[in-house]
Amino acid sequence: MTSRREMILSTLAAALVPSVARAGDDPASPSKSHAEQMAREHADWMGHETVAMLLYPQFTALDLFGPHHMFGSLMGAKVMLVAETTEPVASDMGVKVVPTTTFADCPEAPTILFVPGGTDGTLKAAENPAVRRFVRSRGEKAEWVTSVCTGSIILGAAGLLGGYRATSHWAARRQLALFGAIPVDERVVFDRNRVTGAGVTSGLDFGLSLVQKLRGTEYAQATQLISEYDPRPPLDAGSEKKAPKEVVVMMRDMLRGFNGQVEQLAKRVGLEGRTNEPR
Amino acid sequence: MTSRREMILSTLAAALVPSVARAGDDPASPSKSHAEQMAREHADWMGHETVAMLLYPQFTALDLFGPHHMFGSLMGAKVMLVAETTEPVASDMGVKVVPTTTFADCPEAPTILFVPGGTDGTLKAAENPAVRRFVRSRGEKAEWVTSVCTGSIILGAAGLLGGYRATSHWAARRQLALFGAIPVDERVVFDRNRVTGAGVTSGLDFGLSLVQKLRGTEYAQATQLISEYDPRPPLDAGSEKKAPKEVVVMMRDMLRGFNGQVEQLAKRVGLEGRTNEPR
Repeated sequence: MTSRREMILSTLAAALVPSVARAGDDPASPSKSHAEQMAREHADWMGHETVAMLLYPQFTALDLFGPHHMFGSLMGAKVMLVAETTEPVASDMGVKVVPTTTFADCPEAPTILFVPGGTDGTLKAAENPAVRRFVRSRGEKAEWVTSVCTGSIILGAAGLLGGYRATSHWAARRQLALFGAIPVDERVVFDRNRVTGAGVTSGLDFGLSLVQKLRGTEYAQATQLISEYDPRPPLDAGSEKKAPKEVVVMMRDMLRGFNGQVEQLAKRVGLEGRTNEPR
Repeated sequence: MTSRREMILSTLAAALVPSVARAGDDPASPSKSHAEQMAREHADWMGHETVAMLLYPQFTALDLFGPHHMFGSLMGAKVMLVAETTEPVASDMGVKVVPTTTFADCPEAPTILFVPGGTDGTLKAAENPAVRRFVRSRGEKAEWVTSVCTGSIILGAAGLLGGYRATSHWAARRQLALFGAIPVDERVVFDRNRVTGAGVTSGLDFGLSLVQKLRGTEYAQATQLISEYDPRPPLDAGSEKKAPKEVVVMMRDMLRGFNGQVEQLAKRVGLEGRTNEPR
């Protein structure tokens, strides 16, 4: 058992330290040769997943980069940032990220389809027929259909959550019912092949949960260790139940406009959502 | 108290939902006008921080985007992604991010200087005299000199950690002593104006801690709530103490090559580090 575990971990470490494993300009690096040797010897621990992560204007960067870090630890997986064009896409805080793949070039049946959240930009993406067509077409064939934060609004608008238990950012969670989903107050929700995370930072728990599903507990433990994911928030106000009541009320108030717009969105695309009950 | 808190939070929410507050193309949005009205009424809750976040080839994206999300909630702050040139910079997992600012254009005395970590790319950045000069010059004048993960190796190589308590990724933490720092096994370490985080995911705890320092507890609580930062990892292997021993041993083994290279780096730039004891 220990020896098998060691082999796994050696191989894994090569993936988890990508620059060590890939560095082509430092052939003398002992860690590199070790990693490459292990990768050769234990090729069965390589995966072949394709991960299609949606980019759209005003997405929330941390919604994406939490899961991206975890998916990036899947040795052999191909992680793509997919957008309508290859032009850099600006997040809601103005970070410009360069897509790797266009909608047209994205595999038809990715292992994982992932959609990050946001606020106004998320509504606009959900209104965009090209985005809905892309998300729906890949979502119908993907092994896992996933989101973090209000990304689930886009999944819902694309008709992919009808009849599924799902979550979203706490302030928008109940709105999922408008798309035929069953809102659940949990941090990461698995229902068949739909996996949805709660607000923003849940992406770390979401991503690690999927790594565990895809590669097993030991692989996920090593991923967690190398990411030093042993959280210790300095405050304890991360949920509606824990934050001071005034903080919750004000935030809910402020997001009411967003939720109103989700309602309008649901009316416009609602039929699409309802016609796509699970088959 | 409640009324003051409410005012604070209204203003804050406008910043925390940046696309709502900034959207220029939907003047009828009720959330926008509410947010703007609040922002006008409580202008004293606006800040004026400049946050300079270093980008270099093969940085670890999540090291950066955890803190970036928290800093991005600082209403009125200017958050910059700073690199040698404005060409997109690829992370260790191949994500290309567009810098906003060059070294030359970065303010001389930013409120916060932040350095993310990585592996091989971090060593190369620390070897690069232009990077060390930039980090040292801004670090000497910044109000806060900060890092996450092995970003502290770059701070050390730039001579900014001599005599300071500091942390880094668990596997590289002890190497900080090579640069005159006092390694500390904590998730976020404050020592005077140096603030260092442990591996990768500590950036969330680090960032929220700094938000609390800069804007107070209520502001930070609201930031935590809107980020839904109520972590619940599916496994409990996020530290050396918690992970299975075999996992720890193998990871440590695999990273030995990296640590060997840090030793060589420290020898080459060591004098620079030692001459910069706190004044």
